[in-house]
This record gives sequence, structure tokens and C-alpha cells, in this order.
Amino acid sequence: MALNVKAIGSFHIGGGPVTLTGLPPRRLVLTQGMGVREFPQDGDFESGQMYAQYVRLERPRAKYPLLMWHGGGMTGATWETKPDGDPGWQSWFLHAGHDVFVSDAVERGRAGWSRFPEIYPEEPHFRSKQESWSLFRFGPPGSYPSRAGWPDGLFPLGNFDQFAKQVVPRWACNDASTQAAYDALIREVGPSVVMTHSQSGAFGFTAALHAPDLVRAVVTIEPSGCPDPDTVNLSALRSVPHLLVLGDHITGDRFWETIVLRINRYMDALRAAGCTADVLDLPAMGIRGNSHFPMMDRNSDQVAALVQDWMQRQGLMQ
Amino acid sequence: MALNVKAIGSFHIGGGPVTLTGLPPRRLVLTQGMGVREFPQDGDFESGQMYAQYVRLERPRAKYPLLMWHGGGMTGATWETKPDGDPGWQSWFLHAGHDVFVSDAVERGRAGWSRFPEIYPEEPHFRSKQESWSLFRFGPPGSYPSRAGWPDGLFPLGNFDQFAKQVVPRWACNDASTQAAYDALIREVGPSVVMTHSQSGAFGFTAALHAPDLVRAVVTIEPSGCPDPDTVNLSALRSVPHLLVLGDHITGDRFWETIVLRINRYMDALRAAGCTADVLDLPAMGIRGNSHFPMMDRNSDQVAALVQDWMQRQGLMQ
Repeated sequence: MALNVKAIGSFHIGGGPVTLTGLPPRRLVLTQGMGVREFPQDGDFESGQMYAQYVRLERPRAKYPLLMWHGGGMTGATWETKPDGDPGWQSWFLHAGHDVFVSDAVERGRAGWSRFPEIYPEEPHFRSKQESWSLFRFGPPGSYPSRAGWPDGLFPLGNFDQFAKQVVPRWACNDASTQAAYDALIREVGPSVVMTHSQSGAFGFTAALHAPDLVRAVVTIEPSGCPDPDTVNLSALRSVPHLLVLGDHITGDRFWETIVLRINRYMDALRAAGCTADVLDLPAMGIRGNSHFPMMDRNSDQVAALVQDWMQRQGLMQ
Repeated sequence: MALNVKAIGSFHIGGGPVTLTGLPPRRLVLTQGMGVREFPQDGDFESGQMYAQYVRLERPRAKYPLLMWHGGGMTGATWETKPDGDPGWQSWFLHAGHDVFVSDAVERGRAGWSRFPEIYPEEPHFRSKQESWSLFRFGPPGSYPSRAGWPDGLFPLGNFDQFAKQVVPRWACNDASTQAAYDALIREVGPSVVMTHSQSGAFGFTAALHAPDLVRAVVTIEPSGCPDPDTVNLSALRSVPHLLVLGDHITGDRFWETIVLRINRYMDALRAAGCTADVLDLPAMGIRGNSHFPMMDRNSDQVAALVQDWMQRQGLMQ
């Protein structure tokens, strides 16, 4: 079925000017056929901005735009076509009637990144396929060399290299500017629903605390972090329902078990403060085999529909 | 007017596996709240891939998809919303009936980039605002500090910082892998029209030579380079019409004068070989004040319409 699209476009937001001095110039061939020229490395730059791309529908059925925030070492491509070539959640939620904003956080993708160590204090981390394989629970410990996943695994492992092409460098020093840019994005877009994945989970929880009047719901897919509930005012979130979505094979994975304990403590604190904090624990519901990337798993449509049902029940659709 | 969109999505293409060994591990906090952990830097990676995002129409009026390739230090954002917030050429050409593929070349944007010096032999170049200002002919020599452009300039200089937020690092060592990825993109998409800007001009000319059966036309906006016409078989391009678009204030700019001499020599050689090689020299047509980025200038719709008229005359529309 065709989408009736009112507008498609993008913008950068957040960050600001930085000036560098004292760097030696470099001699480079930057233009084919024009030979070696000298390029000053000093000058004025923008740093700390993020990128957001929107698709607005002619007749959205959702009350608010849906902001899709990717995880660590990834870009907005997370939400687009899946590594196996099937439509991703950007397309699914557009068809479900949401205006969708897919963004690249500070330092990722079309957001650009800044010189180190002059602006960013350290070098980036390059995530290997080995690290992705184990961190994202694509298979049992030690299974990377054989590329044999879980017997019930739903990630399309035949397309693992296509997934690996989506992985981009990331830094460990940009949390503050990333949060600031996300906060600026919400102020720019206005009332909206924030959907996060993995690393952006913490940014989404915090964004809701920073703008409980603008964030109308938080859907957090396999978040890797959250604020300390003892240090924030959760009662401000009574009108901001939260939904946590968890995949499979967390039990027995000490890293993810520790994270989920922390996230559950945050969800418990939300409920204790009078907020809506619901959980889609997929394996507990009998849906086995989801990885850390349910939006790319073979049952991504099924998981999307569960999220959509929840949004409907929260009154987020017209 | 709403767009009837059949499909929206993306994919990565090109490149291949690289394995790194012998790197020391790093100790990092990559997950908020999980403390310092040790991360091997060795492992398997993908390198040399590019990214392409497509919007396909329910009823395209163009015979072939339009591939939009950005210039140096930029990403596909070049073609999206303009720095002044007006719709860009992605939107314009969608409304004109083209399926549109906006891509990020190797090392840019969502394509990701690879570790240096282990994979890329050298560090990237970070383009300053000063360099952009002079290279892109936004104002007369020496005018950057005042931000005063040409009296007749059409670039939205009030939004220059928004433009600067689009600028990303670039390397001078990746021409071969970039060309290979663009060639792979064309094989993937099939018969298509290639629209290039600046640095991608050379990649587009070469892509047509590599696949004259698939590239149905080349529209090159302010290309910064081209093959040496004496070393390539231009007669293979007799069924591949070329259109060159040039902005203003080239005369008197020795860098751009030299480039345009080279491009005109290529266009002359195309004509001598029996090919269609047309030129939209905007100031010669009485359209004054365009910068190196006519797709962002205030008259971008006017320039787009001239390109669209040419495509119509070349039989590229249904």
C-alpha cells in the first residue's frame, strides 16, 4: 500500500562553533587532477550537532511524531531496511500512521564527527564483528567463528556481514553533547514519542525527565542504561508512559543480566512514583529467539505490532 | 501535493572484510553504569562499503531511478532540506516523478569509516568554515570574517552555520574504493540516471564509462574532476547524454577556472566522439549569483527545472 507523504527532508541540530589554532597545515591531493595543495588545519568548525531525517504523512493517524534513536556504534540505518532486505521499522511505523524522524546521534553517520584529541579528547572505538556477535546475543558464547547462532535465534545471520557494514566508529566521551543534541531535537520537533535502542535508552529516559511536557511516551528497545532512579524526579513522568521491550537469551549472559536488573529497578521506581511502566518481555510471553536487535529479527513485524498495540492503548493514536 | 511512496529504505553495498591483529586492547566505559571494561581492538571488520537510501514512487514518471551523489566532505544531506529550511532536490525530483536514491559514499555519513593508519593509510582532513567559504565561492576572497557574500550571491549565507553542520571529515586516499562502491551501486540498482556534485563528478563520469549499458544519463553539478579524455573510450558513451551545470563567480577564481578548463575539455571530447554533452552555464544564460551548491541556493527550484527540462528532452521521462 502506498504511503501518502506530505514532506521528506532533514536538518542538523545542536552543537555549536569551535575554533582550532596552532595545527600545522597538511599537503594533500583533495581534488583529482589538481595536484598537491596545502590545507590549513586551523579554523572554525561546528561540533556537537546531530542529524534528523523526517518523513511526514499527509494524514498521520498518530497524535505525535515518532523519533527513532539508534544504539551505540550504529546510525539511523538501524531502523530502515533490515539486513535481510525486508522492510524495517521506519517503514512499518510509517504504514501504521506515524510521522517518523530517524536520526543520527552526535558523532555518528550524517551528524559528522570532530577532530581528536583537539575536540574529542580521545580516539574512537571500532567495534569488531566478534564484539557485535557476542554483545548483541546473536549466538552462544564462542559461536562467532562458526557463525552458528542460537537454535531458536531470529536474527538473519545469513546477512550478518550486511549488518556489519552498518557498524560505525563510536566514542566513549560524548554522552553530554549527545544528550544535549537529543534534548534540542525534542524542543525542535515538539510533542513526540521517543523510541530508543540500546545505548540511546539512557538518552531517551533522560530526555523525558528533561522535557516531560514534550515527550509523550518512551518506548525503549533493549536499553543498555538508565538514570539512577534515586537521583531524579520520576513523579514528573506521571503523564509519560514507558514501555520496555526485551529480547531473548538474556538469562545466563552476565553483562545483560546486570543491565536488565538496573533497568527493571528504574521501571519499578517509575511505577512506585505513579507512572505507567510496562514491559514486553518477549520470551516470557512465549516469543523466543529475539536478539538485541528485534527490529532486524525475522519477527520484527510481530514485535512492532505489539509496540503499536501498546501505543494505541496509551491513547497515542487519533 | 502528497507523494505516493511505494517503498522507502536503505542498504549498504560494496567493500568487504578486513582483519586486524596485533592491536592492544583498550579500557573504556562504553555502557553507562557498567564501569570500565576491556575491549579488544583486533578482529574482523567490514571496510569500503557505501550507503544508499531510496524512495520509490507508486507511479514514477521517470524511466529510471535518479542516483544523487554528494561532493567532498559532504554526505547525502546535500540533497535533502536546504540549510535555509526549504525543500531540497531530493524532494523536488521526487515530486517531478523520479525514484530517488540518495547515497553516502565510502567513508562518509552512514557508510561508516575505517581505522587509520591500519586500514586507511592516513588521517582525514577536517574542512574548516574558512575553507568551505572560499572553496564553494560563497563570497569574494577575504570575505569570510565579515560573512558578506557576493552582492548577487544566492547562497543562503544567513544559514551558513547550518551548512557547516553538514560538513564531515574526508580522506584523500579512498578514490579507488569509492569508485568501486559506486560501480557496485549501479549494478545493484540497474539502469539509472546519475547526478553528481563536485568531488563525485569524477566518480560519475567514470561510472558511466564502466557501465555505459546501465548509466542512462550523467547530470554533473559543478564537478571538480574528470577522467583524462585521451585515456578512455568515450565512444562507448554515445547513448549516455551528459549535462554539465556551472554556477557563477568561476571567472577570476584560478582554482575553479583550471577545473572548468579540464571539464570543458572532457565535454569537448565527448562531443567529438559523437556523444551528447550539453552545458547549463548559468551566468552565461543570465542567471547570476549561483554558488558551488546550486541545489542549496535560493533559486534551486529554477536550476532543478532546467535540469528536468533537459532530462525530458533526452527522453528520460515516460
